[in-house]
Amino acid sequence: MAVYTTVSDDELTEFLNRYDLGEVLAFKGIAEGVENSNFLLQTEHGNHILTLYEKRVAPEDLPYFLALMRHLSAKGVDCPLPIAACDGSALQSLCGRPAAIISFLEGLWPRRIHPFHCRELGEGLARMHLAGADFAMTRPNNLSIDGWRPLLEACGPRSDEVRPQLFGELNLELGKLESEWPDELPQGVIHADLFPDNVFFRSERLTGFIDFYFACNDALAYDVAVCLNAWCFEPDGSFNITKAQQFLASYKAVRPLDERELLALPLLCRGAALRFLLTRLFDWLNHPPGAFVKPKDPLEYYRKLRFHADCDGPGAYGL
Amino acid sequence: MAVYTTVSDDELTEFLNRYDLGEVLAFKGIAEGVENSNFLLQTEHGNHILTLYEKRVAPEDLPYFLALMRHLSAKGVDCPLPIAACDGSALQSLCGRPAAIISFLEGLWPRRIHPFHCRELGEGLARMHLAGADFAMTRPNNLSIDGWRPLLEACGPRSDEVRPQLFGELNLELGKLESEWPDELPQGVIHADLFPDNVFFRSERLTGFIDFYFACNDALAYDVAVCLNAWCFEPDGSFNITKAQQFLASYKAVRPLDERELLALPLLCRGAALRFLLTRLFDWLNHPPGAFVKPKDPLEYYRKLRFHADCDGPGAYGL
Repeated sequence: MAVYTTVSDDELTEFLNRYDLGEVLAFKGIAEGVENSNFLLQTEHGNHILTLYEKRVAPEDLPYFLALMRHLSAKGVDCPLPIAACDGSALQSLCGRPAAIISFLEGLWPRRIHPFHCRELGEGLARMHLAGADFAMTRPNNLSIDGWRPLLEACGPRSDEVRPQLFGELNLELGKLESEWPDELPQGVIHADLFPDNVFFRSERLTGFIDFYFACNDALAYDVAVCLNAWCFEPDGSFNITKAQQFLASYKAVRPLDERELLALPLLCRGAALRFLLTRLFDWLNHPPGAFVKPKDPLEYYRKLRFHADCDGPGAYGL
Repeated sequence: MAVYTTVSDDELTEFLNRYDLGEVLAFKGIAEGVENSNFLLQTEHGNHILTLYEKRVAPEDLPYFLALMRHLSAKGVDCPLPIAACDGSALQSLCGRPAAIISFLEGLWPRRIHPFHCRELGEGLARMHLAGADFAMTRPNNLSIDGWRPLLEACGPRSDEVRPQLFGELNLELGKLESEWPDELPQGVIHADLFPDNVFFRSERLTGFIDFYFACNDALAYDVAVCLNAWCFEPDGSFNITKAQQFLASYKAVRPLDERELLALPLLCRGAALRFLLTRLFDWLNHPPGAFVKPKDPLEYYRKLRFHADCDGPGAYGL
C-alpha cells in the first residue's frame, strides 16, 4: 500500500493548471505499488494515474522510463501513455518530487495464476521485446550481476538471522554466477520486474503492462527468467511445468530463443531468483519497525533459487 | 490508508456475479478511510466503490446506514447510492465480511478549508437534516454522552502520558457535561462524523456527503457542534469566527435553530470536542506499534475543548 505524500488543494490545482485535462472530478490515493505514491485522477477527459516518484526512483532515469512507455505505446504494446503538460513535457514536479500523469490502463492483475495467463504473458513479453528493439535510449541494469555483490555485502552476516548459514551459501552461489554469467546473449529493452501485479487482464486476454520503473537494457532472456520465477511457481513452492511450457511456447512463437539463450536459461533463472532474494533480504533486515509496507518473505526466493540450481538443463522448464 | 483485506480473483468474480454491473474494467484498493477496506470498482456501468466492512462496524447497523443513504439520495441529498444485487439486497458478504457496492460520488474533499466551504457545508447539512426527518429507522448514538464515561475509564490514568493531569481534568469535564447535557433538543438523523474528508466539492460547490457509518438519531444541533469543531479551527488551533458565521448563517437559512439549540451550542461543542478527544486518546494509547494507520493527535481536541469551555455563550461562534 502506498501513498507517501499528501497533496494539498493548492498544489494540486497549480499542478493541473499545467495540463489541458479539464476539471478534476475525483482524486484518490491508490493502495498499490510500494515504490511511489499513486493517485486515481478522474477528469473531464477520463481516468488517469498521477504518480509522485519517491526516493527509490532516480530522477535522472525518469526520461528513459517515460520515453519507453511512449515508444512501446506507439508500437502497439498496451501500456500507460504519459500525458504531456502544456509545455510539452510529461515529466513535471509536485510537492518537491518528480511527477507524471499517465493514462489509466483498464484490466485487473491476476491474484491466482492460471496457465492461460502464462500463455498470454509469453506472447505479450515477446511482442514487447520486439517493439523495444529500436528504442534509442539506454539504461544499464543496476540490479544485475554487478549489483548483487554490493547488495549481499550490505546484508552481511545478519543474513543468517533469516536462515542459518544463508550468508555463506549466498556468497558461494554468487561466486558461481559471477564466474559463469553469460555476456553474449541477445540484448534489448527488458521490463525486469514483470510480476503479476504489473500485468493486467480482461477475462482471459492480456490488456497491458504497467510499472516500467525497473526497465533497462539487458539480455532479453533475463526477462524470460524473471517471469519463470514470478509466474510459474505455486504458492506451496512447487514448479508448475505446464505454466512454464505455455509461457515459453507462446514467447518462442513470436520471438524464437536461440541456442545460447536456451542453454543459459537455468543460470539466468538462478540469477533472477538471487536478485529478488537479495533485495527482499535487504528490505527484511532494514525495514523500520513501524513501516507501512510489510516486507516480502526473502525465503520464497531462496527456495526458487534451490530449484533452479538443481536443474540440469532447459528441459527442466519443459523445453 | 486502508485496505485490510485481500480479495482473490475467484472471490471477486463470484461476488460480482451476484450483480448486473457488466464486466469489471478495473479494481484498485483506495488509500482513504480508516475503518473499512475500500476499492475503486470500474465496470461497464461506470465507477463504483466496493466497501468491505471491517470489525469496527457492527454488522447489525449496516441496514440502517444503507437504507439511510437510499432515503437521503431519493430526497435529493447527494450521497453514494447503495447498489442492489440481483437478489434485491445491497448488503452482501465477501471474504467473510459484510460488503456493499455504492455509487461513485464525484468531487474532492478539501484539504484546506475556506469560508466558502463552510457556507456550502451549512446549507448542505441543514438540507440533510430536513431530508432525514421522515426516515423510519432509528439507531442510538453510541458515542454520545452515555458512551464517554466507559471510553474515559478505558483510557484510565495512562491518559496522563499524553498530557500531565489529563485524566483528572477529563473526569471533571465529563462530570460537568453529564450534569448539564441537554435532552430536550430537536432530534433527527445526524451524520455525526462530518469531517472535511467526508464532504466532496467541485470548484466551490458541495457535491455530496460520504461515509455514513457513524450516522444515528440524536440532537440535530450536535451535528452542528461536530462541524464547528471539524471545520472552523485553523491548523494553529485558533478559532476562525468568519468560517463559523458562514456555516451557521447558511445552516439557519434552511433550518432555523431554536432558542434552546442556540443556548446549548457551547455545551454541545464541548461534548463533541470531548467525543473526538476520547476516541483519539483511546486509539493513541492502544495502537499496536507496527500499525498501518498513524493515530491522530488527541491534544488537537483538548485545545478545542478548552476553547469551548471558555465561551460564555453562542456569541462566541458569531451568532
